[in-house]
Amino acid sequence: MNPLHDLFNPRSIAVVGASDRPHSIGARTLDNLLVHSQFEGDIYLVSTSKAELYGRRTWPSVQDLPATPDVAMVVVPASATLEVLEQCAARGVKFAVVLTSGFGEAGPEGQALEARMRDIAARSGLRIYGPNCPGVCNVNGRLGMTFSPSFPHDLRPGPIGIATQGGGLGRNIMQAMDRGIGVAMWSSSGNEVDLQVADFIDYMADADDIRVIVTLIEGIKDGARLVRALSKAARKGKPVVALKVGRSEEGARAAASHTASITGSAQVNSAVLAQLGVIEVDDIDELVDTAWLLARQLPGDAEAIAVYCSSGGAAALTADVIGQQRVPLTTFRPETTAALASKFPSYAAVGNPVDTTTAVLSQKGLFDSTLLDVCRDPGVALTVLPVAIDYGSVTVEIAEAVVRVQAQSPVPILPIWMSDRCGEGFDIYVRAGIVPARSVGKAVKAVRRWLDHGRWRRRADRLDWQPWPQLGQVPQPGRVLHLNEHQAKQWLARHGVAVPQGVLASTRDEAVAAATRLGFPVVLKVASADIVHKTEVGGVAVHLADADAVAVAWDRIHASVRERAPQATLQGLLVERMAGAGGVEVLVGVSRDPVFGPVLTFGLGGIHVELFQDVARRLLPLTRPEAERLVREPRSFALLDGARGRPKADVAALVDLLLAVSDFVGAQGDRIDEIDLNPVWVGPAGSGVLALDAVIVGRGSVGS
Amino acid sequence: MNPLHDLFNPRSIAVVGASDRPHSIGARTLDNLLVHSQFEGDIYLVSTSKAELYGRRTWPSVQDLPATPDVAMVVVPASATLEVLEQCAARGVKFAVVLTSGFGEAGPEGQALEARMRDIAARSGLRIYGPNCPGVCNVNGRLGMTFSPSFPHDLRPGPIGIATQGGGLGRNIMQAMDRGIGVAMWSSSGNEVDLQVADFIDYMADADDIRVIVTLIEGIKDGARLVRALSKAARKGKPVVALKVGRSEEGARAAASHTASITGSAQVNSAVLAQLGVIEVDDIDELVDTAWLLARQLPGDAEAIAVYCSSGGAAALTADVIGQQRVPLTTFRPETTAALASKFPSYAAVGNPVDTTTAVLSQKGLFDSTLLDVCRDPGVALTVLPVAIDYGSVTVEIAEAVVRVQAQSPVPILPIWMSDRCGEGFDIYVRAGIVPARSVGKAVKAVRRWLDHGRWRRRADRLDWQPWPQLGQVPQPGRVLHLNEHQAKQWLARHGVAVPQGVLASTRDEAVAAATRLGFPVVLKVASADIVHKTEVGGVAVHLADADAVAVAWDRIHASVRERAPQATLQGLLVERMAGAGGVEVLVGVSRDPVFGPVLTFGLGGIHVELFQDVARRLLPLTRPEAERLVREPRSFALLDGARGRPKADVAALVDLLLAVSDFVGAQGDRIDEIDLNPVWVGPAGSGVLALDAVIVGRGSVGS
Repeated sequence: MNPLHDLFNPRSIAVVGASDRPHSIGARTLDNLLVHSQFEGDIYLVSTSKAELYGRRTWPSVQDLPATPDVAMVVVPASATLEVLEQCAARGVKFAVVLTSGFGEAGPEGQALEARMRDIAARSGLRIYGPNCPGVCNVNGRLGMTFSPSFPHDLRPGPIGIATQGGGLGRNIMQAMDRGIGVAMWSSSGNEVDLQVADFIDYMADADDIRVIVTLIEGIKDGARLVRALSKAARKGKPVVALKVGRSEEGARAAASHTASITGSAQVNSAVLAQLGVIEVDDIDELVDTAWLLARQLPGDAEAIAVYCSSGGAAALTADVIGQQRVPLTTFRPETTAALASKFPSYAAVGNPVDTTTAVLSQKGLFDSTLLDVCRDPGVALTVLPVAIDYGSVTVEIAEAVVRVQAQSPVPILPIWMSDRCGEGFDIYVRAGIVPARSVGKAVKAVRRWLDHGRWRRRADRLDWQPWPQLGQVPQPGRVLHLNEHQAKQWLARHGVAVPQGVLASTRDEAVAAATRLGFPVVLKVASADIVHKTEVGGVAVHLADADAVAVAWDRIHASVRERAPQATLQGLLVERMAGAGGVEVLVGVSRDPVFGPVLTFGLGGIHVELFQDVARRLLPLTRPEAERLVREPRSFALLDGARGRPKADVAALVDLLLAVSDFVGAQGDRIDEIDLNPVWVGPAGSGVLALDAVIVGRGSVGS
Repeated sequence: MNPLHDLFNPRSIAVVGASDRPHSIGARTLDNLLVHSQFEGDIYLVSTSKAELYGRRTWPSVQDLPATPDVAMVVVPASATLEVLEQCAARGVKFAVVLTSGFGEAGPEGQALEARMRDIAARSGLRIYGPNCPGVCNVNGRLGMTFSPSFPHDLRPGPIGIATQGGGLGRNIMQAMDRGIGVAMWSSSGNEVDLQVADFIDYMADADDIRVIVTLIEGIKDGARLVRALSKAARKGKPVVALKVGRSEEGARAAASHTASITGSAQVNSAVLAQLGVIEVDDIDELVDTAWLLARQLPGDAEAIAVYCSSGGAAALTADVIGQQRVPLTTFRPETTAALASKFPSYAAVGNPVDTTTAVLSQKGLFDSTLLDVCRDPGVALTVLPVAIDYGSVTVEIAEAVVRVQAQSPVPILPIWMSDRCGEGFDIYVRAGIVPARSVGKAVKAVRRWLDHGRWRRRADRLDWQPWPQLGQVPQPGRVLHLNEHQAKQWLARHGVAVPQGVLASTRDEAVAAATRLGFPVVLKVASADIVHKTEVGGVAVHLADADAVAVAWDRIHASVRERAPQATLQGLLVERMAGAGGVEVLVGVSRDPVFGPVLTFGLGGIHVELFQDVARRLLPLTRPEAERLVREPRSFALLDGARGRPKADVAALVDLLLAVSDFVGAQGDRIDEIDLNPVWVGPAGSGVLALDAVIVGRGSVGS
């Protein structure tokens, strides 16, 4: 049984701070519990001032209760909250739901109170929900542990679980009930002194009545906990649809002041969510569009869709948006096309999009029959049905027909109600659970995400995600690692990362001898743990074709470095064989995300990364299939794949290098803060890869 | 007076094909005209079968009418239409509105009828509207020359004019009236045998009651006519908001089968619209969001906006979307911040976004006063007000306050009604004309377009757009121009396009002598009008450092070309001085768009164009300020602007080259089908540009 089972399905509830003062939090909470809920367990009212409330007796404190409740709802003022929680802990109450505000969000004093709350939770086993939150709306269980006067208005049960931190946007999602969205429950974590959004997701992954989980990521207190919860949802086959608030600089600033959590990098966040199969959306309304589609039906094997429409203009517009969003349109099998051609008049379009023209209005049964033909084509994953206008009774008839066809269709039919006029036709869809999308763009986005999620599920090679336990988000204290390029490369090479053959030379003669042994042309680079940007101090010479060139470069580098970095201690000069011609340069980096831990970044060198942000990221560890996908993710992968007449690059060796880097980070654990391999040379197929430069930032000592 | 004035504001109307048969087009048309319109002019019913209809006498034909009507509405069957039009023409009727379908859209026979209709229009002066269209809805004039039973439901007058070709999407826009959008008129052109969308835009540009024009571009019959109409709207200060249907391959296919017009290239279309100040949107609902905002108020000088919100989460989400859309947030002036800080409690956020917290709910007057402070900050162009949830009476009070503040605010306040629950608060906004947007993403997109349009208006250097009259969209017949690179370059050079110093050599010795004269290193290239891809036949040698190298290259090129292009006639080899080091390569192309004519494309060479489609386009002719903007439009402009430690490139010389190319095309007129300068070398600032390769495709003879 999920550890939060008794929180969301308690047998008994105490309301501490119960009141009948109109509009008080205490009274509103009681109202929801006693009047608007259908709770059959025991309710205990705790009040220090009144002996009776709502015709029920009260008790002066939690200690005095005749039995220990599963949940204590705490609605006393902030100043009195700690004492109540201590009593709850002493009494063995399982969960305290603290709705009161005036804690962390109100300043340093409140933050101190929160620290003490965390302390109580840690030592007693009492789990604390909140503070500063609207509480729990268990819609399917019809139980409102909330002060919100909205509770009685938002009671359309359904398959969607909602986990949010803040209240405003969570309530916004609940109000999608007005367009027919059914919700199982909404849990909002407020200041998260103990229970977090991640815990609610974990619960929802287990809950039988929840098929899809919707969440807002406003800030993440514990990245690992969130990763575990999301992985569980994935294993249980429950899609999670997420909106991250605070993705832009402006939004992050606003979110930080609002939730007092770390928001982390939006790019890393998106990469991690995608890895875990979480469907990320861009706007709050898109959460509902996407979640409802997933709740209606999970995507199957087909990867393309059909458009079926009675307005030529709407069909073309929908096809446009589908093209822009790169959603594939099914090429109907011949049987489908033949069936449509035999039923429709000649001026209808029987390709895809299907433009029925007004023929379906005059010929009885034609609509049902042809729409079903389309939906039964095995290449169709879903049929989009744009409804351009509300045309009164005509629209009603079509809606009724769609509901009939949906009952026989193997795939979902998604109506797009494009008009601002919502008449009876709209209601027919809603009543049948076929909630229309409200704009072509938003609908197609939802469909794309639905298809993408299907692809992820079929792949499903990360369901057992295990983040490295030893790799925290915060750098550990310890002596800063102080490595020159040669040391960094040697360390990486011991773990299978391909680096050029190289020798650290202490004298000019050693350098010339090494170059002769390695074979020309060679590169000469200053080796100093004090110099990160070697080129800037004149510390690099390339294309050295013979012994003389090496000797000359030796002197030049020494002179230049002595002048431009006089304080640096030199460990010698690194002599390396130059990489062959015809390669492509890529960059591979690892950094430590404050929320999720070590993240690998891959991109093609230079301009593509800078101007076009054309990189791909993954939370480590990396699996081989994931590395294979990772390298193909940047648009500039075309350069590795033989674009512009180049030879195909050695992608297999590149994948090996990425896996070696991932293993290296795993083996070193907390030592590594950052790795920068830039450039990595990727040769033509069969000729390997080489990390031409390597920087490792870390702490402690160089590991084995 | 606009030539279409009497079409939209007739003094008398004849209905040819009048009927009282229920649901017939004739009856529905009469119903709209006699019952639902408030038309005070004369109405004549023409019927071959009934002497009286709707209690009015009828006439058997147009010839028999007692007076000549301004407009004849033609609702007879397709087969009878031509005769009616002949009669109208003979009688001197000004406009025939043909609602009947069964013409071009129905096949070759219908197309033949349309050709005859065009013929009648051309020789008689009768202007024909349609066929196959719903007709005219003059909402402000309360005149429905339409068979649509929707006419009486869509009668909210307003400042927006709608011009569409098809009916379905046009009606969709009309139904935005249900969210408070007022429309002056809707005109739909159907098969456009004569009058086109462009003509309606031209009329609306002149109409006093229209402030903003909304149009759908489903296909363009006459690009020049559209350009003229859009330019007129710009001169009259009326924004045009457009959605092009058929932008993707899939959509273009669907649109072509639907409208039988040329859709042209979506990229060219967008570039031309942007040049003309047209606001292009991506979805049909965005037309209305954007148009209404423009109708409420045109943007002023400020370029940044404010967000004012009572929900921290909604504020952060809005800020996110604002950041993603690159809409600038105002930095409040100190007076604003001080005023807000003095009025709000300390836990509110008084930066931008302003997060009022719930303080505004408890403290009377605080909302009005602080929202007005924000709107009066001179750096604020517009204030966005996200409303996350419908909270009943609280939301009503806020809506009432917004309406009050708007009356005093110098800038528009745009509420975003984020919830699916639309209660009384929503209606208050609508009644006050402050129509809320319905999603954060769509709202911010509308705001961005509104700001962009303000910037275009302030610039307003293309209000007197004059497309070249001599440059049609269709290549003229004539002998195909057959030029080698040297000839193309010479021709361009005579018009001020910078090309490398070069000599066409006929013998090896001539080549060596030329190279010596030009100065090494040189390039040697085969000169043949038969060879377009010189590199592929081994026809190019670069970096030739001395006379020997030139001689060797001469033999190698001749041998290779003889083998790989044996049929080609050689005009010699072109010897050119090589461009200096340190330059950036760009491409400049001109092609002839089938709709709009000659379009110039500019981008940075190679990979940026191919992988990232990072190019910018302009309809010619080019002005200097526009050329200045054009070169800065691709993201890879950074490479010309000193990114990655490069020297700044000679952008001034590049702009001169673009203008020279534009002038060249103008001077040559119909001769030129295509120009391809790829690459053009752009040297460091002060060192000029050079078109290193040049291909001209055209017809006729080489001009001066």
